[in-house]
Amino acid sequence: MNTANSTIQPEPGSVGVVKPQHLSVVVPPEGFRLECGRSLPAIEVAYETYGVLSPERDNAILILHALTGDAHVAGRHSPDDRKPGWWDFAVGPGRAFDTNRYFVICLNILGGCKGTTGPSSLNPDTGRPYGMTFPAVTLGDMVRVQKHVIDQLGIPSLLSMAGGSLGGMQVLEWLLRYPDFVRSAVILASTSKLSPQSIAFNEVGRKAIISDPAWNNGDYYGAAARPETGLAIARMIGHITYLSDISMDQKFGRRLQNRAEYSYEFNHEFAVENYLHYQGAQFVQRFDANSYLYITKAMDYYDAAADWGGSNLEKACARIKAKTLVVSFTSDWLFPSRQSLELVKALRQNNADVSYLEIESDYGHDAFLIPANADPLIRVVDSFLDNLYPTEGAP
Amino acid sequence: MNTANSTIQPEPGSVGVVKPQHLSVVVPPEGFRLECGRSLPAIEVAYETYGVLSPERDNAILILHALTGDAHVAGRHSPDDRKPGWWDFAVGPGRAFDTNRYFVICLNILGGCKGTTGPSSLNPDTGRPYGMTFPAVTLGDMVRVQKHVIDQLGIPSLLSMAGGSLGGMQVLEWLLRYPDFVRSAVILASTSKLSPQSIAFNEVGRKAIISDPAWNNGDYYGAAARPETGLAIARMIGHITYLSDISMDQKFGRRLQNRAEYSYEFNHEFAVENYLHYQGAQFVQRFDANSYLYITKAMDYYDAAADWGGSNLEKACARIKAKTLVVSFTSDWLFPSRQSLELVKALRQNNADVSYLEIESDYGHDAFLIPANADPLIRVVDSFLDNLYPTEGAP
Repeated sequence: MNTANSTIQPEPGSVGVVKPQHLSVVVPPEGFRLECGRSLPAIEVAYETYGVLSPERDNAILILHALTGDAHVAGRHSPDDRKPGWWDFAVGPGRAFDTNRYFVICLNILGGCKGTTGPSSLNPDTGRPYGMTFPAVTLGDMVRVQKHVIDQLGIPSLLSMAGGSLGGMQVLEWLLRYPDFVRSAVILASTSKLSPQSIAFNEVGRKAIISDPAWNNGDYYGAAARPETGLAIARMIGHITYLSDISMDQKFGRRLQNRAEYSYEFNHEFAVENYLHYQGAQFVQRFDANSYLYITKAMDYYDAAADWGGSNLEKACARIKAKTLVVSFTSDWLFPSRQSLELVKALRQNNADVSYLEIESDYGHDAFLIPANADPLIRVVDSFLDNLYPTEGAP
Repeated sequence: MNTANSTIQPEPGSVGVVKPQHLSVVVPPEGFRLECGRSLPAIEVAYETYGVLSPERDNAILILHALTGDAHVAGRHSPDDRKPGWWDFAVGPGRAFDTNRYFVICLNILGGCKGTTGPSSLNPDTGRPYGMTFPAVTLGDMVRVQKHVIDQLGIPSLLSMAGGSLGGMQVLEWLLRYPDFVRSAVILASTSKLSPQSIAFNEVGRKAIISDPAWNNGDYYGAAARPETGLAIARMIGHITYLSDISMDQKFGRRLQNRAEYSYEFNHEFAVENYLHYQGAQFVQRFDANSYLYITKAMDYYDAAADWGGSNLEKACARIKAKTLVVSFTSDWLFPSRQSLELVKALRQNNADVSYLEIESDYGHDAFLIPANADPLIRVVDSFLDNLYPTEGAP
């Protein structure tokens, strides 16, 4: 299943050119029942794999993406692809998730817009995009779909899992839902539940989207206008929360963009404003506004303690059998270290095999995605996995 | 000039019923020249006063309001007024700004929408509201207008000044611009310049306003629709930054509003969402969207060091002669303590008479407006003023 094209000379450590893959989840005749009570008649999943599944099928690692990520973790889709996958520095031959040793899988999540069924997908019952008729999905639903895919790929257990932010929340849900299926897990810049401040930021982003007249109650597919303004505002808000005060100071300060004096007009003249507008404009080219609504709502809803421990995280964590590594970043104020520590404490109270690392970083919540943090992150993940799977083949 | 109506029984410590006052700034024939290079043909200012100016005219204290505040600091406009002024707990007989001893003045700022000339005012040259033809205003312009008012009221010097947030930034500008006019000043939850993170939040709020079709390039006065959606979004973003993560946790947690279970619909069901929507809806009833644009832009532009010290705050602060008290709040992440400390350090390097107090509070940036913080705040302001003006009459 190694999809790297051997005729292309890849960069050293890169998986090279990779091909997106697709799979239909085998759904019972009554549909795939969701936690909201409604069902989906069909579910397609986009995924990518890197490396080769061992004959013992014991070297599979599932990586889960964050809010606006996708299945494309590493490598490039074509030799002239401008950018590699979102975690390219971490996944490849000799990298932390060493594709010479491990079989790495990543799937686009349910509700997404990068090949997995979501609100922009065609509803087979109507032949039209779901839009807001798409049922609400939860992290539990996302993870159940992922388990179906892993089963259909013939993988009997996961050597490890990893994810940051929403990806880490999904990892946690996997550990709680399928405790016997996963040997180990890396949870980065994540939480067992969103704080009210995070919910608040998400809600303002959603309000910006649904207030955009082009949103049209979610029915804009094929229309001349899409809710790009609202989605850009949501992204701009998000982006501020992904960075830190310090990194914004270092990166932009109060510098003006391409001018020496104030304009005294209402254009965006500070470099930081320019950056945010650019990020917003880029984002709307690649993401669906309805997916943003559905996925942020799923994040807001998620509460590991409520779902598995009757509101008690320690009780919930009693289910977990995997060896875990929890990593937080000092300047992450969206999912701050204290949320990671809460999870670590709950695991320790159950005598679980858990390690915790707080990485000194100025990059805020996005730190796990930033190559500048690669060194400490890669070293710890590398040794964590190495201890689990010390030689080629079975541990 | 004590406007308290003696026929009403005021609450103990309250200034009672107060009357808004108005004044026309005496403007030269060529208009009031602004820093942007343009001029205003006329400037009206709304203000309120509390207490009595001493025969020596040496007991005047100017209070300056924050972004969405106004001249109504204390008391009520009528006996059945639902709410008192925005700093009622701090201003009144026997209160920190003791109206038995001091003559307290507050003015609505230039560019505002509460009686002082701003974008919603009629342009005397056209007879129509300015809208976006209103010239850009700066903190320097706001303070120059205030100085005109104080001069026209026949007040030869200020015993003290006080302001929080944008109010504190204006106080700083006063101290730099009119160093011989002010004997002392209290600067609360403020800064000598906004961080790029604060500029970023302001810019997203502005983008929400100007993206609202009802904004209509600022020309919505008298129209059926006003840009209430955009302004509400801007306010919701602002509100998140005025609170703290901790206070939101304490106040709302992940509690649902009036329901036990998730709805799996896109309504706002978390208490924190409900609160933000309520704050947004309330705000648009009392504030003008264009004023929000102009005032946030003036805040973003302000940089005391750049304006007065060639980018060196220490050099700028060499101008300051007033005795100052700088107060910050531990959980304020919008204008964090380190910004207050930067100012304190610059003043100390000039051997200025400066005191600094960091108040332990969970209430975030809004802490200076919260009666729960009244005790430590009032005690320190009270003793600060008492030392300056120890007896009735001249010090």
